[in-house]
Amino acid sequence: MEKKGVGVLDVILNRRSVREFESHPIPRGDLASILEAGRWAPSGLNNQPWRFVVVEEEHDLLNLASMTRYSSIILRAPTVIAVFLDQDAGYSREKDILAVGACIENMLLQVQAIGLGACWMGEILNRAREVKDLLKVPESYELMAVLAVGYPKDSDKGEGNRDRKDLRDLVFGPWPFD
Amino acid sequence: MEKKGVGVLDVILNRRSVREFESHPIPRGDLASILEAGRWAPSGLNNQPWRFVVVEEEHDLLNLASMTRYSSIILRAPTVIAVFLDQDAGYSREKDILAVGACIENMLLQVQAIGLGACWMGEILNRAREVKDLLKVPESYELMAVLAVGYPKDSDKGEGNRDRKDLRDLVFGPWPFD
Repeated sequence: MEKKGVGVLDVILNRRSVREFESHPIPRGDLASILEAGRWAPSGLNNQPWRFVVVEEEHDLLNLASMTRYSSIILRAPTVIAVFLDQDAGYSREKDILAVGACIENMLLQVQAIGLGACWMGEILNRAREVKDLLKVPESYELMAVLAVGYPKDSDKGEGNRDRKDLRDLVFGPWPFD
Repeated sequence: MEKKGVGVLDVILNRRSVREFESHPIPRGDLASILEAGRWAPSGLNNQPWRFVVVEEEHDLLNLASMTRYSSIILRAPTVIAVFLDQDAGYSREKDILAVGACIENMLLQVQAIGLGACWMGEILNRAREVKDLLKVPESYELMAVLAVGYPKDSDKGEGNRDRKDLRDLVFGPWPFD
């Protein structure tokens, strides 16, 4: 266990969406550690409903890129991880999706921690049917997210939205810090 | 950024559900850091749909405990964080819930990183209506999870389910490690 968790909170606070990547591939050990982080997420009844497709073939990346308004992010990424919820493994719609959200966040934090960058892409869910057909996943797989991953380009200033609501606007009821 | 992210992955791998807590309270700085971790989760369109109620009054904890089969976990915890999705802040059901899942995982990792323990309680969602009434939250708040948090008791062996599916059973399509 690390000292007082400064490391984890630092990674959480410093994580940002990266949309421009260097072209060189991700070392296999790094990719394995990202998937490992996702694998160890918590889930209700430990049902582990997450499934992954790692997309790295140019032909697949081109096709995938055609399914989103944000094609350039995918075209620049050496690796894309498509994250699915396997409905055959599910037991509660809300809890299953929460678990997949935890799984995705684990992967994003590991990406950040090892000096890589990622973009959590959601708009592509509008064309989930086509993504499923392209990747030939079982019918029970529901697309939850697509993560573009790679080495961040220096030119990517990470100008994502860094605003967050004040904690006072998130905590309802008794304020625990008086 | 920490060195190669060993710290984050360690915390992810070592996290486990804690169900027995020491009675002494959580230092306010630690509680603040947990909520801060949640606050910085990613969300679609950065809509930050998560809302928290921190429950620490004995009367409220007793009432909350009566709403789950796992009362003893709440009765032993000095602090309980109820996590809601504010539907008024939502824009896409699935993406909103994924974001709340990421938020919960951030909090659980920070809990683990600072030497505290937590239990992600889901069964209590069966009585979400009563929880909402007890905590007097707005009607737009949907209960997503209840986190019991505190110092782990030495007697808590953390005998949660540590099994995980093999990565081969989670990755569909091309195996990226050949």
